[in-house]
Amino acid sequence: MPNYKNTLPPVTLPPIGVIHSPYTREKETPIQPVYAEGIKGTVEVFPKYAEGLRDIEGFSHIYLLYHFHKAEPIRLIVKPYLEDVFHGVFATRTQHRPNPIGLSVVRLIERENNILHIQDIDVLEGTPLLDIKPYISLLDHRENVRNGWQEHIDAELARLRGSRGHV
Amino acid sequence: MPNYKNTLPPVTLPPIGVIHSPYTREKETPIQPVYAEGIKGTVEVFPKYAEGLRDIEGFSHIYLLYHFHKAEPIRLIVKPYLEDVFHGVFATRTQHRPNPIGLSVVRLIERENNILHIQDIDVLEGTPLLDIKPYISLLDHRENVRNGWQEHIDAELARLRGSRGHV
Repeated sequence: MPNYKNTLPPVTLPPIGVIHSPYTREKETPIQPVYAEGIKGTVEVFPKYAEGLRDIEGFSHIYLLYHFHKAEPIRLIVKPYLEDVFHGVFATRTQHRPNPIGLSVVRLIERENNILHIQDIDVLEGTPLLDIKPYISLLDHRENVRNGWQEHIDAELARLRGSRGHV
Repeated sequence: MPNYKNTLPPVTLPPIGVIHSPYTREKETPIQPVYAEGIKGTVEVFPKYAEGLRDIEGFSHIYLLYHFHKAEPIRLIVKPYLEDVFHGVFATRTQHRPNPIGLSVVRLIERENNILHIQDIDVLEGTPLLDIKPYISLLDHRENVRNGWQEHIDAELARLRGSRGHV
């Protein structure tokens, strides 16, 4: 196994657009799309990238990859919203990650040129967009999943804490 | 809707580790985990981030987010491996994206300190790792999905082209 250590150069990514949502304050933003069902937002892709959206309207669900731009500080051990127990950051979906990249599966309702109308949005207004990928059942659905500490979460408590009052 | 245009600053992300796989040549690398079933690899998380892996072994599947470090050139319109028709880059999973971030769901077999033993690996040896997230059925599984142009792909042809001879 070659030794790469910390010699890999950093990766620099320009935002390709902005995500618009009804949430202007972090503590009012739902923590996952499943806790934001039906909440509407838009994805504004900057015009220079708009051509890359061709045929995306055929997909009912898309991944948004974005920058958790309000995610300071970084932590390696975190207490998730859904449980009062500490876990390693990579065993959670918290935003306080060494590389603060967010990942959400949202519903794509309609495309209007460079604007995507979406639902189930769980990100702050003004969040910088890094990438869009189609959600594809064949590639993205897994069966027989073990869900670690999430298996023991009470579903009702999770909805209450996760939606932050929005659904 | 505020106007952000292209004023958002670029995001700079240091790799947090390296992905090791049997694939040393791009054109021999399967294009998705579903076309690399059973192929073994490891994820080496740099020691300074290893504490963040606590409790990850409870999850059977994890997302790897990584840098497509061999992905030049960027294209907005691409012809995917699975079809001889052009689509917008954001309607495909190609690596030739404006921000070359890769996303794979792999099986987590075992954790050994800062090393994760994984299966179903579809990335090149030496790929810079950006983030790890747990795959959680409740959050990540979607029903009633429309899969756009992927609906019309022949499954056998997809496996043949997608695995590049590995499975």
